[in-house]
Amino acid sequence: MTREVPTPRGTTDRRRERVTIRAVAARAGVSAMTVSNVINRAGRASPATVAAVRAAVEELGYVPNVVARRLARARATTVGVLYAGERTPFLDAILVGALRATNARGLQLVLYHEEQLSLDAAEGAVLSLARSGADALLLVPPFAELLCDSAVLAELALPVAAIATDQVAPGMSTVRIDNRAAMADLTALVVARGYRRIALVAGRRDYSVSAARIAGFQDALAAHGLPSEAGLIVEGGFDVASGEAAARRLLARDVRPDAIMCSCDDMAAGVIAEAHRRGLRLPHDLAVTGFDDTMVAARMWPSLTTVYQPAEEMAFRATEQLIGAGDGDLVANDLIVAHTIVERESTASLRAVIT
Amino acid sequence: MTREVPTPRGTTDRRRERVTIRAVAARAGVSAMTVSNVINRAGRASPATVAAVRAAVEELGYVPNVVARRLARARATTVGVLYAGERTPFLDAILVGALRATNARGLQLVLYHEEQLSLDAAEGAVLSLARSGADALLLVPPFAELLCDSAVLAELALPVAAIATDQVAPGMSTVRIDNRAAMADLTALVVARGYRRIALVAGRRDYSVSAARIAGFQDALAAHGLPSEAGLIVEGGFDVASGEAAARRLLARDVRPDAIMCSCDDMAAGVIAEAHRRGLRLPHDLAVTGFDDTMVAARMWPSLTTVYQPAEEMAFRATEQLIGAGDGDLVANDLIVAHTIVERESTASLRAVIT
Repeated sequence: MTREVPTPRGTTDRRRERVTIRAVAARAGVSAMTVSNVINRAGRASPATVAAVRAAVEELGYVPNVVARRLARARATTVGVLYAGERTPFLDAILVGALRATNARGLQLVLYHEEQLSLDAAEGAVLSLARSGADALLLVPPFAELLCDSAVLAELALPVAAIATDQVAPGMSTVRIDNRAAMADLTALVVARGYRRIALVAGRRDYSVSAARIAGFQDALAAHGLPSEAGLIVEGGFDVASGEAAARRLLARDVRPDAIMCSCDDMAAGVIAEAHRRGLRLPHDLAVTGFDDTMVAARMWPSLTTVYQPAEEMAFRATEQLIGAGDGDLVANDLIVAHTIVERESTASLRAVIT
Repeated sequence: MTREVPTPRGTTDRRRERVTIRAVAARAGVSAMTVSNVINRAGRASPATVAAVRAAVEELGYVPNVVARRLARARATTVGVLYAGERTPFLDAILVGALRATNARGLQLVLYHEEQLSLDAAEGAVLSLARSGADALLLVPPFAELLCDSAVLAELALPVAAIATDQVAPGMSTVRIDNRAAMADLTALVVARGYRRIALVAGRRDYSVSAARIAGFQDALAAHGLPSEAGLIVEGGFDVASGEAAARRLLARDVRPDAIMCSCDDMAAGVIAEAHRRGLRLPHDLAVTGFDDTMVAARMWPSLTTVYQPAEEMAFRATEQLIGAGDGDLVANDLIVAHTIVERESTASLRAVIT
């Protein structure tokens, strides 16, 4: 369902609508992304660049879509959510959060599931969402990573917000936790409970949060004078099966880790299943931690110590940013919300367990 | 946001809009619910009653809201979902299912959370949803139970569908599984795996599915010549804590059950946690089953044998019914979708475990 975009006031010359962002960029001698940043007031361009871009916009009579949309409707009405992968408790939390947030503001929510993780596929998905009426976009990982340099996205000039990512890109709002600090805090808790040979099942490399969490893990080990052993960091795929596979590798080592931290709750569920299967007593023989505090965390045994990432609130804040963007200027913000360490039974103190 | 309902063609007399369903009912000598059933062609009234109601409608010039709505818009555009309680994996599955279904048909979805479980509160919630533009309703348990005799709901004459319930009410579409047969099938599996002293943690009594599942459990025990012991059926509250509490009672008995079946996955998670805490080896010492096959079922250990209730498909089908209702007549259907028994590690055969 494509909506007609009315011609903005004072822009009756039909040819003007055919002027592209690339033409403006060529005239100003800058990239399309820079033009988008100037239009969206992302605030990274020099005053000279801003002047050059504004001159080119004026000269060519360029009308970005978003301006036409704003004149027509004053603010965004339909938020498109772009996401990948199978249903997970974390994804459900984000979708329900986005639904509640758009509901609270009387907006439509349109979902788009794209299985293929490439720039081409992501751009195709964005265009489909725009064609079906989305006039603001919410990106679920790893789409902020895939689209951070997208010319298609820049040309559309829609308000865009990315949640639960560590990818900060010009022209894109971000709502996230401090992943590095959160993982450092959780690691410090595991150390404080008496565990010393601590392994990490990291997330997929193409998700920006993964590197940030590895860095936080290493920060905390260094702060407590513990060595960071390369063999104790294993890459997982953010799912249960990869958690099981990582546990098989880590628990087969000559000297077994006494704690396995994971970059999401689902991988922790896999580690716990594998440990139970091997007859380990949890948490005495092995402490396990997750990340996100999805609904599974409190429903497994031992109940899971994890980082609470407020997915629903993040989706809500991101939607607020998208709407705010429509009220006046398209300002790209980087909003960092508070995380919480949730301590449950899976990291009970070694001393307490032995007693 | 209240929408204006245009005066239908040929109904220019303003007084006609003030004729209520109650006035029609009084004139025809029947109840308001019967009038609603006749208008909605729910098909439970005798030909004589139908004739009396139609005569009264004609005589008084009664125009049900739904007719005005249909003339104005041809079909429903906004589905209101009424639900209660805390977020659970099952509720998330329903909400995401409803969102996908409404998305696929270009409809709006509006959520309404009502904590209080009384007829008054439920009717207030329905009126709020209608005022905010909902022109079709999706009821999540226990709202079909609460609203099955509601005069307010009858008067609104909106298409209504209830999912995951056993409450079949006139004028209401239902999309559900055969809860009694599903629980009988699952019980038969537990018996086939060698378990004999089987307990049940039933659901809340005010949810119609609970009684149906108890009946299915007892059907299967009787079919296999096993006694149904009253003390082995305990009422839970569909949450983890009540599963833990039920397990404490059941496992403290002189002769412990060798299997505990539960009326939802969350209560099974509670039973498993309590059993682990007591040092039982699962499933050798105790088999556990759930119901629904939410995302937690495959993420706990032992992974949970359960009944798959296709929540997303059910929400989808219910939305289809609501839309179909708007295309022509408001026909109340009772649609029973297939359930699936999902066998996982929590009911591994006693023989296999001992070996």
